[in-house]
Amino acid sequence: MLRDHTIEIRVRYSETDAMGVLHHSNYLSYFEMGRTELLRASGGSYRDMEERGRFLVVTKIGVQYRASARYDDVLTLKTSLSKISFAKLEHSYEIRRDGQLLTTGETTLACVDREGKVQRMSELFPEFFANRS
Amino acid sequence: MLRDHTIEIRVRYSETDAMGVLHHSNYLSYFEMGRTELLRASGGSYRDMEERGRFLVVTKIGVQYRASARYDDVLTLKTSLSKISFAKLEHSYEIRRDGQLLTTGETTLACVDREGKVQRMSELFPEFFANRS
Amino acid sequence: MLRDHTIEIRVRYSETDAMGVLHHSNYLSYFEMGRTELLRASGGSYRDMEERGRFLVVTKIGVQYRASARYDDVLTLKTSLSKISFAKLEHSYEIRRDGQLLTTGETTLACVDREGKVQRMSELFPEFFANRS
Amino acid sequence: MLRDHTIEIRVRYSETDAMGVLHHSNYLSYFEMGRTELLRASGGSYRDMEERGRFLVVTKIGVQYRASARYDDVLTLKTSLSKISFAKLEHSYEIRRDGQLLTTGETTLACVDREGKVQRMSELFPEFFANRS
Repeated sequence: MLRDHTIEIRVRYSETDAMGVLHHSNYLSYFEMGRTELLRASGGSYRDMEERGRFLVVTKIGVQYRASARYDDVLTLKTSLSKISFAKLEHSYEIRRDGQLLTTGETTLACVDREGKVQRMSELFPEFFANRS
Repeated sequence: MLRDHTIEIRVRYSETDAMGVLHHSNYLSYFEMGRTELLRASGGSYRDMEERGRFLVVTKIGVQYRASARYDDVLTLKTSLSKISFAKLEHSYEIRRDGQLLTTGETTLACVDREGKVQRMSELFPEFFANRS
Repeated sequence: MLRDHTIEIRVRYSETDAMGVLHHSNYLSYFEMGRTELLRASGGSYRDMEERGRFLVVTKIGVQYRASARYDDVLTLKTSLSKISFAKLEHSYEIRRDGQLLTTGETTLACVDREGKVQRMSELFPEFFANRS
Repeated sequence: MLRDHTIEIRVRYSETDAMGVLHHSNYLSYFEMGRTELLRASGGSYRDMEERGRFLVVTKIGVQYRASARYDDVLTLKTSLSKISFAKLEHSYEIRRDGQLLTTGETTLACVDREGKVQRMSELFPEFFANRS
């Protein structure tokens, strides 16, 4: 599995707010897109995972906003898998525009089944745990 | 069941766009809130309906925008049940600020089960069909 | 100026709802992306237009939903300029997944300045009006 | 000025996601509503502040999700002003359903003028700084 992956996102008009900038809540959806694409680039599929009854839920987020983005800006989002343990998956994020760092963030995810019962990450990502047993 | 119902909605900052007004897509969510509250005021619950496996899906919408709304405006939304047949449910909407009509709209809904199979409205709203058989 | 333009949009997780499908309000944001890209493909820029003090506001929309879209679906959106007059701009939209038509729509836009005063479309798109005078 | 304030928010259908719960990005909009209402309850108005050319921008957020919320849930959001300095404003948040703590969060805000230049908080909230000079 890849450790990081970069995608481009163009800011939509509907994502801006009355201050004329990308509303700060949208970064969480961008991070989610970054995770989807990091997994796809690694040969997995979050959609397939859900169809098999495994769901990744966000348990913690942090975002640091340095500079704002505007409508029609093309941003690059680098998503990095920073830590994986039996209980959780941690990612970090960097959003840039023309090289300038605008926003950084971190998320922690847990894995649950359809009933919301916590599952081990080793079931989802066995390759990370193969050499630990 | 009531034929119409009025609620108040205060425009959130996150719902505005770079033009400084309520982004036009949010009216669809407002209409949805209007339907939820019309049903609740009539003694029903859309949430219970879904838990029993019946879902109302939007098949058609129309919105006419006359004047824009801004952050922190208190709007009144009047939701009216305009027509009910075996196949569909039609509502109309009026959004006002201090009496001034800002926006009107109409929606058509169909009822489906968990598998997406179309269901008769007479099952959901028997009282409307009682005197027609 | 081009008469139509097609883009691809991948459905984001944050755009789905509890019914497991793309929430119907998001189609309006997709249509807006379609207009942005149709204008760009024609050599214009909606962002530049706003910086020059001209804004296109939605005055009317209609959407017909035939089948739903799901998380991670790749949709194609065809945006067509269907009519242009001094007072308004009309577009129509078709959203497909693997060739299947899911959703159609139409919008009407007016042009206003920073004070909200209606402007003639001939100022924005002179090439359409050149041979009419 | 009040130190904390509690409001009720009912979860909208459009705010849910395919997992059947309130999408985690919406909590940021809820926190923003909490700040608007805390200020209003204290006799201020964020809208007036913006009209006078002062904007509060989010520079940092943290959210901890313990349990999820669902469509139609009535949540209580307690917003507390935790710290105020010349450079920044810090709030903390608690979201509960029937007393159960679902989510906590913190935000840091800075004040800027129309050009994005950082302003002192003492100008916006002189009463907090009156006894410090």
